[in-house]
Amino acid sequence: MTSSISVAILGASGYTGAELLRLLAQHPHAQVKALTGDSQAGKKIGEVFPHLATAYDLPLVKHEEVDYTAIDLVFCCLPHGTTQAIIAALPKSARVVDLSADFRLFDLDDYAKWYGHAHQAPSLQQEAVYGLTELVRSAVSKARLVANPGCYPTSILLPLLPLLKAKLIQTQHIAVASMSGVSGAGRKAAQGSLYTEVAEGLRAYGVGGHRHVAEIEQELANAAGESVTISFTPHLVPMNRGINSTMHVTGDADALRAHLVKTYQDEPFVYVCPKGIIPSTQEVRGTNQCRISVVADRRPGQAIIVSVIDNLVKGASGQAVQNMNAMFGLPETIGLPVVAMFP
Amino acid sequence: MTSSISVAILGASGYTGAELLRLLAQHPHAQVKALTGDSQAGKKIGEVFPHLATAYDLPLVKHEEVDYTAIDLVFCCLPHGTTQAIIAALPKSARVVDLSADFRLFDLDDYAKWYGHAHQAPSLQQEAVYGLTELVRSAVSKARLVANPGCYPTSILLPLLPLLKAKLIQTQHIAVASMSGVSGAGRKAAQGSLYTEVAEGLRAYGVGGHRHVAEIEQELANAAGESVTISFTPHLVPMNRGINSTMHVTGDADALRAHLVKTYQDEPFVYVCPKGIIPSTQEVRGTNQCRISVVADRRPGQAIIVSVIDNLVKGASGQAVQNMNAMFGLPETIGLPVVAMFP
Amino acid sequence: MTSSISVAILGASGYTGAELLRLLAQHPHAQVKALTGDSQAGKKIGEVFPHLATAYDLPLVKHEEVDYTAIDLVFCCLPHGTTQAIIAALPKSARVVDLSADFRLFDLDDYAKWYGHAHQAPSLQQEAVYGLTELVRSAVSKARLVANPGCYPTSILLPLLPLLKAKLIQTQHIAVASMSGVSGAGRKAAQGSLYTEVAEGLRAYGVGGHRHVAEIEQELANAAGESVTISFTPHLVPMNRGINSTMHVTGDADALRAHLVKTYQDEPFVYVCPKGIIPSTQEVRGTNQCRISVVADRRPGQAIIVSVIDNLVKGASGQAVQNMNAMFGLPETIGLPVVAMFP
Amino acid sequence: MTSSISVAILGASGYTGAELLRLLAQHPHAQVKALTGDSQAGKKIGEVFPHLATAYDLPLVKHEEVDYTAIDLVFCCLPHGTTQAIIAALPKSARVVDLSADFRLFDLDDYAKWYGHAHQAPSLQQEAVYGLTELVRSAVSKARLVANPGCYPTSILLPLLPLLKAKLIQTQHIAVASMSGVSGAGRKAAQGSLYTEVAEGLRAYGVGGHRHVAEIEQELANAAGESVTISFTPHLVPMNRGINSTMHVTGDADALRAHLVKTYQDEPFVYVCPKGIIPSTQEVRGTNQCRISVVADRRPGQAIIVSVIDNLVKGASGQAVQNMNAMFGLPETIGLPVVAMFP
Repeated sequence: MTSSISVAILGASGYTGAELLRLLAQHPHAQVKALTGDSQAGKKIGEVFPHLATAYDLPLVKHEEVDYTAIDLVFCCLPHGTTQAIIAALPKSARVVDLSADFRLFDLDDYAKWYGHAHQAPSLQQEAVYGLTELVRSAVSKARLVANPGCYPTSILLPLLPLLKAKLIQTQHIAVASMSGVSGAGRKAAQGSLYTEVAEGLRAYGVGGHRHVAEIEQELANAAGESVTISFTPHLVPMNRGINSTMHVTGDADALRAHLVKTYQDEPFVYVCPKGIIPSTQEVRGTNQCRISVVADRRPGQAIIVSVIDNLVKGASGQAVQNMNAMFGLPETIGLPVVAMFP
Repeated sequence: MTSSISVAILGASGYTGAELLRLLAQHPHAQVKALTGDSQAGKKIGEVFPHLATAYDLPLVKHEEVDYTAIDLVFCCLPHGTTQAIIAALPKSARVVDLSADFRLFDLDDYAKWYGHAHQAPSLQQEAVYGLTELVRSAVSKARLVANPGCYPTSILLPLLPLLKAKLIQTQHIAVASMSGVSGAGRKAAQGSLYTEVAEGLRAYGVGGHRHVAEIEQELANAAGESVTISFTPHLVPMNRGINSTMHVTGDADALRAHLVKTYQDEPFVYVCPKGIIPSTQEVRGTNQCRISVVADRRPGQAIIVSVIDNLVKGASGQAVQNMNAMFGLPETIGLPVVAMFP
Repeated sequence: MTSSISVAILGASGYTGAELLRLLAQHPHAQVKALTGDSQAGKKIGEVFPHLATAYDLPLVKHEEVDYTAIDLVFCCLPHGTTQAIIAALPKSARVVDLSADFRLFDLDDYAKWYGHAHQAPSLQQEAVYGLTELVRSAVSKARLVANPGCYPTSILLPLLPLLKAKLIQTQHIAVASMSGVSGAGRKAAQGSLYTEVAEGLRAYGVGGHRHVAEIEQELANAAGESVTISFTPHLVPMNRGINSTMHVTGDADALRAHLVKTYQDEPFVYVCPKGIIPSTQEVRGTNQCRISVVADRRPGQAIIVSVIDNLVKGASGQAVQNMNAMFGLPETIGLPVVAMFP
Repeated sequence: MTSSISVAILGASGYTGAELLRLLAQHPHAQVKALTGDSQAGKKIGEVFPHLATAYDLPLVKHEEVDYTAIDLVFCCLPHGTTQAIIAALPKSARVVDLSADFRLFDLDDYAKWYGHAHQAPSLQQEAVYGLTELVRSAVSKARLVANPGCYPTSILLPLLPLLKAKLIQTQHIAVASMSGVSGAGRKAAQGSLYTEVAEGLRAYGVGGHRHVAEIEQELANAAGESVTISFTPHLVPMNRGINSTMHVTGDADALRAHLVKTYQDEPFVYVCPKGIIPSTQEVRGTNQCRISVVADRRPGQAIIVSVIDNLVKGASGQAVQNMNAMFGLPETIGLPVVAMFP
């Protein structure tokens, strides 16, 4: 066990960076040493995020100003596509949890297809671990580079991977409707994320081809031992945080539920709700939990699985801290709030 | 054409009643003569709904105080289950648009199964017309009793009925995830509808068995010529108004889209969006429109249909006014706003 | 009376432009002929605002592409500071309602002080009418150029101007706390207007010096016959529309209320609530109403006045249409919704 | 220092009870032993508040089922008016933090006037300490009964008490406009707290006479050494949590600011913002902080003070835990989150 982990956060001026700082402020074994944010370098983090003003006196600095040899762990919160070269250039002594999508696709052709350019650190990709902690914690504990899963994928893979592995659901008939809060779009000023454009309404987007599908299908295929194509439709909902995934699958609801209960019975962050109880995203807001329900569909032989997470916690920064804990031999729950903020 | 329709609204103290009053205030050929609301009888409508104080000086009265012989049309906004006896006792001279679910199920056994008691006006049921105006306007024009469709059903049936009739989609593989605003739950003080319970979160409910399924499957079966069982999962979303239905169907997206364009090309209230455009509920807020998109699924041979309505307008009071217009030989668009309130 | 007014909207890609289009779509005597929006010129208005796609088939064009000789009325919705030169160059045959702040300050030094540059059309300024319709309708009816009042000013001036004129309140002790919805910030992509930055919270801003103060104090001084300095603190509230102004004044509440009732008794858009009733912004959402209450303060000799408007309607586009109606000899209420959209 | 404090929560089925459970779940020196909730007795707390299901396995029990001799501290979250008799009957060994208003007014006539009935435990009232921790921590540390301050009062008294004590502001000209989130209204099913009634709008309420005024004026008078009458207008804002108080006072802004900085420089929960920075309620959401700004008014000799808190934390359950910490000789910060949940 490490007594204190020295941490750097790259791209700390976004919401996942800020959420890491919220969580790490309560973590007894981590010390935030450096924050980067190129466009706002020179500002105190409390000027960029006023809510952090009383907890942190750190400035944002430029990437090249950081002495990474003194850093044990780098959380990388940079935009997709900008991360590969930066991580490749870090000293090997720094372990990395990357919250971008840059190291999540192991088929380099797949990466090129979805992201429109060749992967820039292919050898590093081979070494990365796709860090859905509960299902790969042994690999995570030894990894130098963890690719932290995406928010939608986390909500979908936690229930589906064990069921596919156990061959309890079919691979051909998986249709998912997911709904996400707005923080998933980040802090960039964009017309589509304005309060006035989002509040009091709802829209589907990326219908037929959201990028997260690549990562979801990769992991589903690994679990199933065969290629899997799913239907996935995300929706933007007027709330800050939260993802709900409603999954239509073939399979016996009772058997699916029993298998998930067994799989996750000792997991502190995955909770299979009592029969008849459907979770809301409010129940997990601010926590690292995933809550799951399984209900029999009206169509015989079909089941509906509902899962909820906080996209910024279990879907991003919380799972990143959980991965850090696993990497450094700490109990995974350290520093992670156990009770949702409700209401 | 009738120069002025005398209207009574039963149950005017709920949201659908108030919405009727909003729409009728701009209707040149309707005159609201009586409002009932038993528990609040004696109050002016502006005391119950302050936003109506400047437009209407009418009191709420008890049902038995209304002289229905002077009424041409009764809008019935009473709770499910309380409506049948009341409508059966109205004079035959009064035509009725019933916004409750009481006359929507033509199989009386089905009604008893879903609502837990025998139907109380079975002969009246036979005479009722299920009033999805666009698809049955000739029957509506002659009806004495129109059962106004439910909000979820309207959003689902407008796209699916023509496609089933044309045998362009299969009956066995229809899975619908719908999301609704909170006004669908009415104005009753209920813990689950409090701001604090609903805001900033999302939940599925009625998973595996929402009552609206009965009405949806009845109409789908009529169109298909065979019984249909669907998967239907509603979700409660933090917004006042709006329903989005995301439908997974088997079928060729281009063929489905083409057929819907053809079906609805002359309809003022149904709009098939240009290819590639997905509608948001904000686009129809306050209007009587239904907007529809069709997109090819990643799974070959599957399509995703998205539809949006305002649950209080096209999903309730707006369609009721549209039906009134059809019943009295008026252009269906009279009194119905054409542009959404956005933002 | 003009049978049809040909209208152009400059800057139609913002919220006040879109709101004008919503209102004019129901106006029987106005025809929208041209829409400008330089950065999005070439697009259909329905591509920029999907909710308008079914009501208008018009494109956005560049300013210089419009033939203004065929235009009776120009609504100018351009950003503050860009408007003076453009309006000065319009043919004199086109009357103008300007929704920017460019022509609201009659003291050119005052303008320069608050806006940081010299006024660019000083002679035009002299000819402008500050168009708070209820109080200057005769001047509005003859004006070529109406400076449409700001949203905060409208909510404050409608109650305070008659009271100052009647010397019923003192000039030295006016303190106003106002709260506004987010649409007041416009449609520009700005971090501070993101859903995630605004939802579920509240902040004061511009404390001690919001620009609207200049316009408010100018009009208060005109009414009082002496200079007036007020305290004005706006707050940003998580809602799309609505302004509430809570005003602390010295004066006798009953006398104030009686005078406002008398002043506005025949006005269709100003409603003094019954004693004891405090209005909410929801009651006026989507309408051109201002609702006002007066309550005795706990401090003897002091009163609290509360007023609410929809910032996009009575605070902008609705008052602009009301001014157009007055300018063209139409009843002021034409085309303006009478019932709020609630909920 | 006590190694473990045995805690009972009376009235645990409301929001302040749930919030205590959220905070105590992270408190290393408190053990929740009993929860009462008469109408829901027999249910697990996780059935009443699903978000607590994974952290607590405790049932709600009836008040008379609790063995209070084993309890060190009782948090009393019962409705106003029901608390006095219950607390009077507790064994003297149990210390009490009462979150209701029952013990906040030391003038029993005042209590009777505002609450409509005679106080039922007058001798206990004399012993109570009004627990605004920062300003009376020595008295709190020895108290058996702490009357936890109300939410609005906390936001107003923290800035105003030191200023009145130092005679830096006048007593006659204090006008406060406050805005609160909806959780302040509790979890009771009430029409006025429905999502549909509250969302997307704003209203003033209790204008001229909200009950919290009694408590505010009592404490202001104590500090000033003379009676104080203020203007206080609360507003209901569509957000779950948060209070903003905007206070108009006579006084020199720089002097006021300097005095507050000095008063609170070592306080972990009170933060005077840097000059020019106005806090938002989001910055303190979920934390026990109060953030304060002081700005010069446009009216010479006047200042505007803005303060924000989370009404459920510093305005209720957080301050209650802070008081518990002080009563048991613990550092006041224990168990209280330091970083807001944002967004």
